[in-house]
Amino acid sequence: MRVELLTIGDELLLGDTVNGNAAWMGRRLADHGIEVTRSVVVGDELDVIISAVDEALGRADAVITTGGLGPTYDDLTRDALAKAAGVALIRDPVLEKRLRARVAAANRPLAPMALRMAEVPEGAGLLGNSAGSAPGLRVELPGGVAYALPGVPFEMRTIMNEIVIPELVERAGRPQVARRTLRTAGAWESVIATRLAEVEALDGVRLAYLPSPGEVKIRITASGPDAARRLDGAEALARDLLGTMVYGTEDESLATVVHRLLIERSRTVAAAESLTGGLIGTDLTAAPGASETYVGGVIAYATEMKNRLLGVPEELLRAHGAVHPDVAAAMAAGVRDRLGASYGIGVTGVAGPEPQDGHPVGTVYISVAGPGSEPRVISPLLIVPGAGAEVREVVRRLTVVHALELLRRDILGLDAEHGAREAEEDREERG
Amino acid sequence: MRVELLTIGDELLLGDTVNGNAAWMGRRLADHGIEVTRSVVVGDELDVIISAVDEALGRADAVITTGGLGPTYDDLTRDALAKAAGVALIRDPVLEKRLRARVAAANRPLAPMALRMAEVPEGAGLLGNSAGSAPGLRVELPGGVAYALPGVPFEMRTIMNEIVIPELVERAGRPQVARRTLRTAGAWESVIATRLAEVEALDGVRLAYLPSPGEVKIRITASGPDAARRLDGAEALARDLLGTMVYGTEDESLATVVHRLLIERSRTVAAAESLTGGLIGTDLTAAPGASETYVGGVIAYATEMKNRLLGVPEELLRAHGAVHPDVAAAMAAGVRDRLGASYGIGVTGVAGPEPQDGHPVGTVYISVAGPGSEPRVISPLLIVPGAGAEVREVVRRLTVVHALELLRRDILGLDAEHGAREAEEDREERG
Repeated sequence: MRVELLTIGDELLLGDTVNGNAAWMGRRLADHGIEVTRSVVVGDELDVIISAVDEALGRADAVITTGGLGPTYDDLTRDALAKAAGVALIRDPVLEKRLRARVAAANRPLAPMALRMAEVPEGAGLLGNSAGSAPGLRVELPGGVAYALPGVPFEMRTIMNEIVIPELVERAGRPQVARRTLRTAGAWESVIATRLAEVEALDGVRLAYLPSPGEVKIRITASGPDAARRLDGAEALARDLLGTMVYGTEDESLATVVHRLLIERSRTVAAAESLTGGLIGTDLTAAPGASETYVGGVIAYATEMKNRLLGVPEELLRAHGAVHPDVAAAMAAGVRDRLGASYGIGVTGVAGPEPQDGHPVGTVYISVAGPGSEPRVISPLLIVPGAGAEVREVVRRLTVVHALELLRRDILGLDAEHGAREAEEDREERG
Repeated sequence: MRVELLTIGDELLLGDTVNGNAAWMGRRLADHGIEVTRSVVVGDELDVIISAVDEALGRADAVITTGGLGPTYDDLTRDALAKAAGVALIRDPVLEKRLRARVAAANRPLAPMALRMAEVPEGAGLLGNSAGSAPGLRVELPGGVAYALPGVPFEMRTIMNEIVIPELVERAGRPQVARRTLRTAGAWESVIATRLAEVEALDGVRLAYLPSPGEVKIRITASGPDAARRLDGAEALARDLLGTMVYGTEDESLATVVHRLLIERSRTVAAAESLTGGLIGTDLTAAPGASETYVGGVIAYATEMKNRLLGVPEELLRAHGAVHPDVAAAMAAGVRDRLGASYGIGVTGVAGPEPQDGHPVGTVYISVAGPGSEPRVISPLLIVPGAGAEVREVVRRLTVVHALELLRRDILGLDAEHGAREAEEDREERG
């Protein structure tokens, strides 16, 4: 079953928005064993949309469009699909009634233009959209089926999950592909790939490495009639070879995993930040239920704040400045004790673009102080290609990942040195 | 001058990465008056890449590919362009020498596969890539010119800025399009669009509205031989009609503008956060030089921390819970005084997905305490469609935007009520 995506909208060609919808759709379809063979973006032009739909169905079995279902003059998807199917656009009385009722309930006048959202290519199926104004459409065309979805992400995902994916899975028959993603932090792609050579060699199994700052996701893809069984075998072998490098699977973030480990042990955490500016707190509070594990934090951005808010000794700051392993340790213990948490995180370093106190950009010290324990400190030297504000962003993100990974290893009673060893290999790798 | 983008890589179809490169390229080309007419993503398949290049040049004057220039077996762009041009792939001795030297300097063995990066379609131009390993390519084909760039964002942007865009601008002649973007916060799209009706009516001028949580960007596009002059006139009229709603232009974020306003006045800010978890601090520390204006912050996530870290009176918390305008005000004044900043920001509210203390999701109180002033509090009721973790994310982001906008208005001595008035209209709009 081959599917193409067609995203419609000038704003995408102009780079006003990044095509997050297409990425989400590609991922969800792949999860269900359906291959996206091409993804195209066109602007709001009727003839271009029509020919893009026709071309797609010349190559694939189905095309899924997003965008162009709103009420304004540049919303052309309904028109395009009607023309492609050689049918008329007709006003659907049920849709019109619902639209009028919705607008009346909001106490607003009905702009005549809005009634375009009650028009439907004759014979098209309506894909119920309780979340928004315009329904999705299913239009059968000579070359295959076209699904038209709203561009609003939440509405698109609802219709994909509830209607389109189940239909496509039904049409496709039994999936011949099974996938799983393992997530690692603090280890380098080359180290992981070297360890996984045995898995790469397995029949019917492919590995893809997806690095992001401080993390590497490993996607295992197994194919063939016994794909599920092969996948289980490959995953077991990969986990055996990688050991504690693996922190989670699929989409569970490092922060989510840390949250779960803390809840299981009835522990809490507080974070003292500086260069990270609040990123650690943001990550630890992103998910619902965070209040059970994250009690709060301090962003001691100015050097003096490290003493004022966390009790880092003035002599230490005077002697060494803010960028020093003992400062990180004092921050971790300070925030743990002052906020009454089980664990404290402390980070200090140089995000750039300028060096600080003679320390090069990428010098960071990361500390975790556990319950009744002395803080542990790591210092991964973060060498980041690029310039200016980009480097700053990556150094900050890397610091967050290393901090959360150190906390995870602390909770699990694991060696913190893994991070330091990786830093050594990192220096070697980058020559 | 019509240009198409061709992004090559399985990982993009599988949704492992979002196509940030294409968005960036579309934006940069548009800035220079060059229209991207289509953007296509294909996988790592030789025949598909070749036909996609040919199709693109059947429609447009130039195609810019990214990806597929690495050393591994799935890097097929060099092969595809050589075949499309009907020429051989030849080993370039200068490239080979440079590659061998680079690998030797990093003290690594040379994997034979890496020498593929020294291969070049015969007759192709090399687009110098000092940042990475493989050069970009320029290949003249029957239908037009193909540029092949690395997929690594920093490398791609360097070659685009230094070589490809100047060449395309040269080929295109004088741009017939001029653009400018105005940025507003705290006002609704419909309010802005209503005010700008006069600008919409101008000849040769088009407006596009680009909303994001709490903000609306207005892109003004003027076309024709006198595009620049029309643009200036349209911008002046728009600014006159929008007044203080406009906080900046192009890519300058609200946080950047606040930073600039504080520096100009030698003022500082500290932020007391809760539901935002560190997002305000993250924004205020994103840009270099932040330490001149942002002294630090406190994330008083647990209710008790609001008293312990910020001095919010216990009786107040006991009587009303954490979600109350007086709590926000006490947080703002508390963080201002305890961290010794000119301005304090305080926020408290319910991000969801569950209501809290009887307050519905989206109830937020945002306060700014200025130098020697009583805190001002606003309470924009944030109604967000969707469910679960998404709502949480949007409520947090909206809170940050409203907080920074309130601070901006405070610094400029503007009415804070603009926000409250918008909340009224918001309630009306959403029925």
